[in-house]
Amino acid sequence: MQNLKKFENLERKNKGLINLNPIQTGGKLTKAAKKALVEFGDGYSVYDISPGLELMEMPLIKKFIQEDLPNFLGADIARLTFGAREGIFNVMHSIIKPGDIILVDGNRHYTTITAAERAGLKIVEVPNSEEPEYKINVEDYKNLIKKHKPAMILLTYPDGNYGNLPDAKKLGEIAAEFKTPYLLNCAYSIGRMPISAKDIGADFVIGSCHKSMACSGILGILGINKKWEKTLLRKSKIYSEKEIEFLGSELRGTAIATLMASFPEVSERIQKWIEEVEKAQWFSKEMEKLGLKQLGEKPHQHDLMCFKTEPFYEISKKHSKGRFFLYSELKKRGIAGIMPGLTKMFKLSTFEISKEELEKVIGAFKEILEMNNEK
Amino acid sequence: MQNLKKFENLERKNKGLINLNPIQTGGKLTKAAKKALVEFGDGYSVYDISPGLELMEMPLIKKFIQEDLPNFLGADIARLTFGAREGIFNVMHSIIKPGDIILVDGNRHYTTITAAERAGLKIVEVPNSEEPEYKINVEDYKNLIKKHKPAMILLTYPDGNYGNLPDAKKLGEIAAEFKTPYLLNCAYSIGRMPISAKDIGADFVIGSCHKSMACSGILGILGINKKWEKTLLRKSKIYSEKEIEFLGSELRGTAIATLMASFPEVSERIQKWIEEVEKAQWFSKEMEKLGLKQLGEKPHQHDLMCFKTEPFYEISKKHSKGRFFLYSELKKRGIAGIMPGLTKMFKLSTFEISKEELEKVIGAFKEILEMNNEK
Repeated sequence: MQNLKKFENLERKNKGLINLNPIQTGGKLTKAAKKALVEFGDGYSVYDISPGLELMEMPLIKKFIQEDLPNFLGADIARLTFGAREGIFNVMHSIIKPGDIILVDGNRHYTTITAAERAGLKIVEVPNSEEPEYKINVEDYKNLIKKHKPAMILLTYPDGNYGNLPDAKKLGEIAAEFKTPYLLNCAYSIGRMPISAKDIGADFVIGSCHKSMACSGILGILGINKKWEKTLLRKSKIYSEKEIEFLGSELRGTAIATLMASFPEVSERIQKWIEEVEKAQWFSKEMEKLGLKQLGEKPHQHDLMCFKTEPFYEISKKHSKGRFFLYSELKKRGIAGIMPGLTKMFKLSTFEISKEELEKVIGAFKEILEMNNEK
Repeated sequence: MQNLKKFENLERKNKGLINLNPIQTGGKLTKAAKKALVEFGDGYSVYDISPGLELMEMPLIKKFIQEDLPNFLGADIARLTFGAREGIFNVMHSIIKPGDIILVDGNRHYTTITAAERAGLKIVEVPNSEEPEYKINVEDYKNLIKKHKPAMILLTYPDGNYGNLPDAKKLGEIAAEFKTPYLLNCAYSIGRMPISAKDIGADFVIGSCHKSMACSGILGILGINKKWEKTLLRKSKIYSEKEIEFLGSELRGTAIATLMASFPEVSERIQKWIEEVEKAQWFSKEMEKLGLKQLGEKPHQHDLMCFKTEPFYEISKKHSKGRFFLYSELKKRGIAGIMPGLTKMFKLSTFEISKEELEKVIGAFKEILEMNNEK
C-alpha cells in the first residue's frame, strides 16, 4: 500500500512555465471553467444541475447541446463524443460499410487511421506537396474520387504537424459535385477560429474540447448535417430514446461542466482569430531571422507551426547533454512544451501566449544559439 | 453572447446535503483527488507528468496501468476505457461477430443493450425471479447456453436497480464448462468491494471509475484475461504500437489524475466492505420498521437498495405537491438523491454515508410519514 501513496501527490512539471505544447495551448481552463471544475469534480455530480437524471430534464444542458453548440458549429445538430477520435469513429462506424474505401489527406492524424482500421475500412491518401510546405491541394481529391469511389472523404483542418489550412470550402464543393460524404477534422480549429460546417459544406465537423475549447476533457464535439440524423442518431429498438452509436450517453461528467463554463469566453476568442494569426506570422519571421526554417504554408495561417532547426542539431552533436540540451536550456529559461530530445525539427503553438512571452521565447532561442556557438 | 454568461456560474444543487443517489455515492473525490483535479484541470495537462508524450515515456502512469491496475482487478491486463459502457462495447466489438447471440442477465443495465445493438448482436436474456427478490439464478444460464450457443455471456454484478449480487463465481465455472467467454459488469462493485477476475473466472471485468472509484470521470476500467490479448489489443497495421480498439488512446486527461490520486484510498476502502454491507443491512431493517419494503436479495449484500414505499404513494395522492412532495420534504431536511417524483418505489445507496447521517435519513422518513398521516 505504501508504494501507492506517491499517487496522492502528483504534480505538473510545467507549472508557471511558458508552455508551447500545441496540444495544451488551447485547452487551458478559463477562470469560470476552473470554478466549474471544482464545483463538479465528483463523479457524476453534473446530475445535480437538475432534479432528474436525463438530459431532457436538464433544461440548461439540453439547450446547450440542442441550440448553443449547433449555432457555434454552424451545423444542424451537435453531439458530445468521447473525444475527437471517437467522433471520427462514430461517423465511420455508422455511415460506412466495412471493406469500403475512404479518402483522407496525407497530413491526417494517426487517429484517422486507427478509427478507420477499427471500422474495417480501406484507406487511400491524398499526398501532400512534401518539404517545405507539405500542402494539401484539394483539387487532388477529384481524380482519386473518380478512381476509388470512396464512401467518405476526410480532411484535417489544420493538420497537427504543420498547421496547414487547406481549402476546405473548395473541397466542400467537390464533395457536393460527387455527392460524397465529407468529414472535416477540426481538432485544432474548433474553439480557436470560427468554423461553420454549413459555410464549408461539410457533412460532419469534429472538434476536441480539451485541445481547443478550454475544457478539462476528455471530450469531443461533433457537428452533423441533418440529412445524417437517421443514420448517425439511430435509436435503440428497446430504449426508444437512446442513440445506439453514442451508447445512450448524453452527459460527460466534469468535462461538460468546464466546457459550458468556458463557452462564453471561447465564443468570444474565436472572433479575435486574426490577431492570433498575425502573432504567429510575426513569430515565424523572428524565428527565421535566427536561421530556423518554418515548414508548412507561408505566410502561415495558424498558431501551430513546425520548424526545421538544423543549427540546434549541429550543437547537439557536440553538447554534453546531446539531443536533450535544448529541452534543458529552455527549461532553465522558463520555457516548456517542445518535445525533449528533438533538435532537428520541432513543432510549437503560439495560441494565447502573449507577444511579451513570445519575445522571451525568441530571446531564449537566440541566447542558446549564441552561447553554444561561442564554445 | 450575454445569454451565454449564465454558463459561467453553474452550481451544484445538492451541495452540503446527504446525497443518497447511487450513481454518486462511490464517485466522491478523496482529498488527494481534489488536489489532483485542480493540478491537472487544464486539457491534456497530464502530459506534463513526463517529458515525453507517450505512455511508454511516463513511468508512473505506465506502472499504474501495467502493474497496479491489473493487481487491483485480479486480471492479467488492464486498460482504461471511455467509460464502463464503452468497455463493454470494446469487448463485444472485438471478440463477437455481428449477428451472433449473447446471453445477458435480466437485470442488466440499459447500456448492455445499446452496446450490443451498436455491435450488431442478438440478445437473449436470463430472466430474474421477479418481485420481491428479482434474483438471477446463474444455473439458468446452462440451458440457455445449450440452446443458443452464445458467443459471450454477461452478468451484472451487482445490477443497478436492486443491488443484487448473483453467484458470479459459479457462473465462472459454467463459462469454463461450456468454454464461453464471460464478461462481468462491475460498475457498482469495482472500487467498492474486492473483485478478482481470476477468482471469479471472468474473461473480462468492467468498472466505472466515476461511479465507484472516487474519480471525476468520464472513465472506465477493463480487466482482461491474457488469452484475449491478441484479439482485444490488436495493433494498427500502420502504427505498430497503437491498439485499434482503443483508437490508440492510452491517457484519459484530468480523470486519470484523479483516479491515480484516489487509488491508495480506494485500495484501502474495499477492505472495509463488510462494514458497508452491515450498515446497509441495518438501514434496510430500520426502513422496514417504517412499513417500507426492501426489494432485492435479503439479507442484502450491497449498499445499493430498492424500496417499495406504498405509504408514501398513499400520501402523494392527497398531498398538494402530489408526487413531488417526498423530494421536497427530504430536501427541507437536508437529504437528496432520491429521484424527484418517485413515491411508489425508489432506489438509494448508503455507501460511505455515516451511520449518523443514515439515522437522520431514517428519522426524516419517519417524520414525513407521521406528519402526513396526522393530516
